[in-house]
Amino acid sequence: MPVGTVASVKGVSQDILEDLGVQILLGNTYHLYLRPGVEQVRKLGGLHKFMSWPRAILTDSGGFQVFSLNELRKVTEDGVTFRSHLDGSSHVFTPESAMAAQIGLGADIIMAFDECTEHPADHARMRQSMELTLRWAERSKKYFEEHKHEVPWAPQNEQEKQIPRSARNDKSYSISGSTPGGPISEGAKQSLFGIVQGGMDLALRKESAERTIEIGFPGYAIGGLSVGEPRALTREVVESTIQHLPADKPRYLMGVGTPEEIVEYAKLGIDMMDCVLPTRAARHGLLFTSEGKISIKQARYIGDKGPLDPKCGCKVCARYSRAYLRHLYASNEVLAQVLNTVHNLSFYLDTMRAVRHSIALG
Amino acid sequence: MPVGTVASVKGVSQDILEDLGVQILLGNTYHLYLRPGVEQVRKLGGLHKFMSWPRAILTDSGGFQVFSLNELRKVTEDGVTFRSHLDGSSHVFTPESAMAAQIGLGADIIMAFDECTEHPADHARMRQSMELTLRWAERSKKYFEEHKHEVPWAPQNEQEKQIPRSARNDKSYSISGSTPGGPISEGAKQSLFGIVQGGMDLALRKESAERTIEIGFPGYAIGGLSVGEPRALTREVVESTIQHLPADKPRYLMGVGTPEEIVEYAKLGIDMMDCVLPTRAARHGLLFTSEGKISIKQARYIGDKGPLDPKCGCKVCARYSRAYLRHLYASNEVLAQVLNTVHNLSFYLDTMRAVRHSIALG
Repeated sequence: MPVGTVASVKGVSQDILEDLGVQILLGNTYHLYLRPGVEQVRKLGGLHKFMSWPRAILTDSGGFQVFSLNELRKVTEDGVTFRSHLDGSSHVFTPESAMAAQIGLGADIIMAFDECTEHPADHARMRQSMELTLRWAERSKKYFEEHKHEVPWAPQNEQEKQIPRSARNDKSYSISGSTPGGPISEGAKQSLFGIVQGGMDLALRKESAERTIEIGFPGYAIGGLSVGEPRALTREVVESTIQHLPADKPRYLMGVGTPEEIVEYAKLGIDMMDCVLPTRAARHGLLFTSEGKISIKQARYIGDKGPLDPKCGCKVCARYSRAYLRHLYASNEVLAQVLNTVHNLSFYLDTMRAVRHSIALG
Repeated sequence: MPVGTVASVKGVSQDILEDLGVQILLGNTYHLYLRPGVEQVRKLGGLHKFMSWPRAILTDSGGFQVFSLNELRKVTEDGVTFRSHLDGSSHVFTPESAMAAQIGLGADIIMAFDECTEHPADHARMRQSMELTLRWAERSKKYFEEHKHEVPWAPQNEQEKQIPRSARNDKSYSISGSTPGGPISEGAKQSLFGIVQGGMDLALRKESAERTIEIGFPGYAIGGLSVGEPRALTREVVESTIQHLPADKPRYLMGVGTPEEIVEYAKLGIDMMDCVLPTRAARHGLLFTSEGKISIKQARYIGDKGPLDPKCGCKVCARYSRAYLRHLYASNEVLAQVLNTVHNLSFYLDTMRAVRHSIALG
C-alpha cells in the first residue's frame, strides 16, 4: 500500500496511481484529523470522494503518528494527549475518538487504536503496553460496532443508495452534486482490523495474537515493528507472530519495508504491507531498480543516456534518461519528485505482482 | 509557449504536456547554460533528446535573465559580464557566445542576443541601448550563419540521418543508443529570430524594427516589454511596433501575459507569446477560470464540492473538487503545484485554441 498521508501520495495524481495498478492506499488518520479535519472530509462524502479515489483505502488509527511525532504525548488508561506538530494545539485520541475519526473518514479498512511500544523496552513495560492495547482493542471494537453505520457513504434511504465501485468510470453517476469521486459498493461496510503488539518478546506476541483473536476481527495487523530494532529481530518477531494468526484472514505487517523485505515477508505469509519508503526515498533521489539502489544525485549519472532501470516498463524508464533525472534532481525541480516517485511505486507494485504470480504458480 | 526554464515545465511531465496539446516550449538559455551546462546538453543530443520532448522548442538568448537576475552585471560593447545566481561565479555572454550556447542546446527557434532596456529610461539611453542591440543582432546573425551546422542533431553522414519528428511515437527508432527523446525532422534547421528594442519610444521602436528587418531574420520578436511599465503602455508599444513588422513572418511578443492580454495581442497580430504567468501563478494557488481568477487558498473553498472551473474540460476539473485542491494547497502538498499547473496550462492553451478557431472563422 502506497502511503497517501494527507489524502495524496506526494506528487502523484490519482489517474497515474490507477495506471500504476495501485489497488489500495493508506491514509494517516493523525494527519487527516489535523488537516483538513475529519468533519470536513465527512461532509464532503468521505475520503474516497474527497480525494477522488474509487479504489480501496486503509486508515491507520493515528496511534503510530502520535507516538512518533510527539515528544510531549501523555498516555493514560483513557487515551493519549498530544500536541499538533502543526500548531502545538492540544488534542486527545482515545479508542473511541480514533474510531469516530476513522468512521468519519470512511476508509474501507480501519485500524484499532493501539499503543506502539517503544524500543528498547523491558519486559514489564512490554506487557503493560500490550495489555493496554488489548483493552483499547476491546473499546475500539465496541465503539465501532455501535457506530459503523455512521460512515459518510452509508445509504440513508433508497434514493441515495451508493453506486457500485465498478461503475466508477461511468461519468453519469453522481451521488451528491457535482463532486467527482469514488463511490463504495452498495452494501459495503468498513472492516476494523486488530493490531498485535508485545514488543520484541515472542511469548508476549503470541499472547497478544491469541487475545486479539479472542476479541475477534476480520483481519489482523502486526504493529510495533520497524521502530528502530535490527532487521533480523523484525523478521524473527514476524516469523514467530504470524504462526498465531489465522491464515484465512488478512495478515498485515505495518510499516515495512525494502523491496527485498516485502518479498521475504510475503513468503512468510504476510498479505498486506505499507511503507513510506518508496515515496520518501524517491523524494531524496534514492531509486529502486532491478540492479539495486541508485542515488540519482551522483555525478556519475550526469552523462548517462540510459534509462533508470532497463528492465522496468514504467513510463519514466520508457521515456527519460538517467542524465535527465539527475539534472532534475540536482536542479531541485519538482518533476524530479514526481518522476522518481512514479518509478519507485512502479518498482514496488511490480515486485508485488511478481510475488502474486509466484504464489499463483505455487 | 509554456516556460520550461531548466528543461522542465515545473511539476508537469512531458506526456501530460503532450496531452494538453503543447506545441512548443520555451527554454531559458541562461538557466540551462548554468545548469546542466550547454556542453552537457549538446553531448546528450540537444535539448529535445535531453528532456525527451519531440515537439518544438524555443530558447531565449539569455539576455533577459542576465538583466533581471543580476544586479552586478556589466555591459560593454563586447557583451555582458554577470555572476551566476547559483554560486556567484563570473560569466560572460556575448552575441557570439549566446549563439554558440543556443546552437549547442539545439532548439528549433533561437533568439538574437539583445539588451533589454530598463524602464524607465531617458531618450538617450533608449537610443544607445537600441543601437547596441542592433550591433549585437548583426553579430548574432553572422555567428549563427557561420556555425548553424553545429547543432547536436545535425546529420553527420547518411547512416546517422535524423528520423522525422512524425515517427516519434514509433518506439523502434533510436538515434544513438537507448536514450529516449525527440528527433528533429531530416533537413530541419534552427531559425534565428531578431528582437526589436527601443524602450517605450514609438519612433525608436519603428527604427529598431526597420533596421532589424534590414539585417533580415525569419521571425521577429518584440522585446523589452513587461519590464514594469503600465499595461496600457505595453499595449501602445505593441500596437505601434507591430505595424512595422512583416505580416508574413512570425511576430513574437516576449514575456506576456494574462489570458485577456494574450487574446488582445493575438488580435493585434501577434503570433507567438511566452509567459511564466500560468505556471508561476499556479504554484501560488492562483488559478485562471472561465469565471475569472480564483485564489484556491481562500477558506471559502474549504467545503466547495464543485470543480475548479465548470466549463473546463481538463483532467483536473474533470476529477477533483475545489475543496480537494484547496486542501492540497493549504497542506503544502506537491500535488497542488502539479494539478494547479496542469489546469492553468490547459486554460491558456484552450484560450489560444479559441483564438485560432476565431481566426479560422474570420
